[in-house]
Amino acid sequence: MTVSIHPAVDGGVKKGSDSFAGGTLVCACQDRPVKVAIKGQIAYNHACGCTKCWKPTGATFSVVAVAPVGNVTVLENGDKLKVVDPSALIQRYACIGCGVHMHGPVEREHAFQGLSFVHPERFQEEGWAEPGFAAFVSSIIESGTDPSEMDGVRGRLKELGLEPYDCLSPGLMDYMATWVAKKNGVLK
Amino acid sequence: MTVSIHPAVDGGVKKGSDSFAGGTLVCACQDRPVKVAIKGQIAYNHACGCTKCWKPTGATFSVVAVAPVGNVTVLENGDKLKVVDPSALIQRYACIGCGVHMHGPVEREHAFQGLSFVHPERFQEEGWAEPGFAAFVSSIIESGTDPSEMDGVRGRLKELGLEPYDCLSPGLMDYMATWVAKKNGVLK
Repeated sequence: MTVSIHPAVDGGVKKGSDSFAGGTLVCACQDRPVKVAIKGQIAYNHACGCTKCWKPTGATFSVVAVAPVGNVTVLENGDKLKVVDPSALIQRYACIGCGVHMHGPVEREHAFQGLSFVHPERFQEEGWAEPGFAAFVSSIIESGTDPSEMDGVRGRLKELGLEPYDCLSPGLMDYMATWVAKKNGVLK
Repeated sequence: MTVSIHPAVDGGVKKGSDSFAGGTLVCACQDRPVKVAIKGQIAYNHACGCTKCWKPTGATFSVVAVAPVGNVTVLENGDKLKVVDPSALIQRYACIGCGVHMHGPVEREHAFQGLSFVHPERFQEEGWAEPGFAAFVSSIIESGTDPSEMDGVRGRLKELGLEPYDCLSPGLMDYMATWVAKKNGVLK
């Protein structure tokens, strides 16, 4: 039995295109879909097992990336967007019709301030940068995955080239620690 | 240049003994040292890069393990012990003379409740279970390690057989997630 990670990667991770210059994210509503323009390529695309990221029905992981807040523009039907949890670091704007999270800016003082979290599978266009790792893998247990399945899940992620981590990737963890060290005056 | 992790592992990780039945932790004071008895072998010994664990002078990582709270007994000079940060999950009892953390029970409702965190290098005896991985590696940046040194640090940890993680090991992360899932009724 093959472990299902997410429909966008289960058949193999599809390489992005160097010429991708952005596109339009569209929610799942038939009527008055929310549309959000993203300028330029996305960064740090990854599979995420956390309980807060939006996932399509049946998916164990979300696929989520970032774009600078300045590159994100709500184009249509923005009146349908509402922040899921205003107390969270990521202000996830979800469509009140279909539930898809359309963009998630970090507004608080944080290493990720100024970035917005988006789900590239909602692009109308192809060519967005492929996911490069898997984050918060152990957290899928909190959504109901049986702990006995975890070896299979981590094995499948490695097979797909999505190195599994139970927090973020080492590069991003170092980036956050560096931000904290500078803020505290430990590093110049 | 060899990266220094901790004096107890820099020369190679020394295997523990199956017959180790516990021992006595002693602080660094010449006068009236604090002594704490630990019954039985320690578990989950690991190198830890977090900023809260006690480290000997010059060490980049701490070496820390757990024992059930019921196996921990303060034997002598317990009047010198004081909790470093009463708001922290781990109630780290430090010697007010030398600063060594002698035991750290988890009293709050948590996956680790009932365990106490101890530093096995303070055992008078040899034979304690060797460290098996490295946790919170990226956090050493917050204590002043330059981000450019991280590749060398992670490489050295792997060389020593201490797989580096930026949170806890997958087994412990799954254990914590399982505890949360059961608490929330997601798992039975």
